[in-house]
Amino acid sequence: MSTKDTGKTHHTTATGVAVETVKAHAGPADITLFGGCFCPFVQRVWIALEYLKIPYQVNEVDPYKKPADLLEVSPKGLVPALKLNNYNPPRALNESTVILDYLEELSLQKYVEADRHLLPELSDIYARAQARLQAHHINNSLIPAFYRYLQAQEPEKQIQHGKEFQDAIEKLVGMFEDCEKKGLRGGLWSTRGEKSGELGWADVMAAPWLFRATNVLAHYRGFVLPPSTKFKAYLDRLLSHPNVKSTCSTLELYLDSYERYAVNRPNTSQVADAINAGRALP
Amino acid sequence: MSTKDTGKTHHTTATGVAVETVKAHAGPADITLFGGCFCPFVQRVWIALEYLKIPYQVNEVDPYKKPADLLEVSPKGLVPALKLNNYNPPRALNESTVILDYLEELSLQKYVEADRHLLPELSDIYARAQARLQAHHINNSLIPAFYRYLQAQEPEKQIQHGKEFQDAIEKLVGMFEDCEKKGLRGGLWSTRGEKSGELGWADVMAAPWLFRATNVLAHYRGFVLPPSTKFKAYLDRLLSHPNVKSTCSTLELYLDSYERYAVNRPNTSQVADAINAGRALP
Repeated sequence: MSTKDTGKTHHTTATGVAVETVKAHAGPADITLFGGCFCPFVQRVWIALEYLKIPYQVNEVDPYKKPADLLEVSPKGLVPALKLNNYNPPRALNESTVILDYLEELSLQKYVEADRHLLPELSDIYARAQARLQAHHINNSLIPAFYRYLQAQEPEKQIQHGKEFQDAIEKLVGMFEDCEKKGLRGGLWSTRGEKSGELGWADVMAAPWLFRATNVLAHYRGFVLPPSTKFKAYLDRLLSHPNVKSTCSTLELYLDSYERYAVNRPNTSQVADAINAGRALP
Repeated sequence: MSTKDTGKTHHTTATGVAVETVKAHAGPADITLFGGCFCPFVQRVWIALEYLKIPYQVNEVDPYKKPADLLEVSPKGLVPALKLNNYNPPRALNESTVILDYLEELSLQKYVEADRHLLPELSDIYARAQARLQAHHINNSLIPAFYRYLQAQEPEKQIQHGKEFQDAIEKLVGMFEDCEKKGLRGGLWSTRGEKSGELGWADVMAAPWLFRATNVLAHYRGFVLPPSTKFKAYLDRLLSHPNVKSTCSTLELYLDSYERYAVNRPNTSQVADAINAGRALP
């Protein structure tokens, strides 16, 4: 499937349900989230903030413009970044996986009222390790495969990378099933998660790309999700989860914002450059 | 600097000081470490086990042969892997960064007697996040740069990747300095670490590659470490730390084992293949 470069570009403000969430988090808070509305690395942090009920303020920035206040908290100008206003002077934190660990540990502090956590209980360190193993797979295989697939221009490369992306999803499902079999806490895939709506570590890590597989990859690459009924039901639970849904903009925002990836336009992003150069994501 | 392929290959049993450590951990324990003596991903886990004083047994395997007992605990046959004998049936864990998180959490459990930890206290979640940010840099920039440098055959590529490796070290030093300035607990680099000998998260993450920079890279690429006196003093503290030293074999073992990387011999390893293909490390 070839894509015509119509010059569409990224949006700079959220649309749809996500706008309401931005509005609800416009006032000052201990944490300021610097984010771009289309960015999946931002979305995983945003979902975590919502789910864990940690007070935060949203600062929508255009990461392509790298405004000065973003560079103050994120040296490479990458989003997401947090400004932690409860320190004097305020401190900064970037890198989505590190931020997720930070928020998870924040959820264990007493001043966060909701008793919600993304990782299994501290007493079950093996279940926690399995969740981290899933996250490692998502970050090192599934996400790079997503971008290779989306940026591939030749049909044979698209087929190859599409297959890799599909395989990465299936491997994740295998890991979920393995946890379920062992009776470990396992997020929305598990029977417990299905009943309780509890999000897990890997759910939040993967959700933004699984979501974009249903719209961006479907539109630009004709991607069809794995046919398993169980996977479809899981994905439906995940994408209709209130704390995921509340961070989702409308279809147009994603299709417009990802055209540059789908035609592999030069200077698309540090992520796109890393994929083109065969490097680890920044 | 070109390297002649003299057909030298990896060692399968530790030498020097490391042999004594293997011998001291020959008896049954709750944790079995599956490791190859030359592998740096194994060494970081080994250092952590030693430092945290967690009881373990070493099972030296040849990861190139992928023996059945290794495949049982590590589906791709990658080392390090742990067999956790305190579960019935025993459970398995692989992926060095996930194992380190597991061991750190194990060190917080009461049955581990030594009150030693690699991450800062649970109450200082910002300091913990900074340690994780350093680890992210080590895993995503410093380590891939090490292999690109070692596997590069053309002189101009060796210069380019050597520079990247040097830059990655300097960036790590910058991160250490930043933590020290903010008064955060920061491992052996910090004034506190210098006095107490406390290893930090990033020390253990990076030690095996910094060590191999002093022997493998020095030998095969004429690599010269950053000239800063402070860095040299840090490296000296790190490599002479008893729990690092006790996992180090003799020079010959490393030079022999890494010849295949230095000439970029086909089928060297899954790590080498990933670097050649421009993929994330397995």
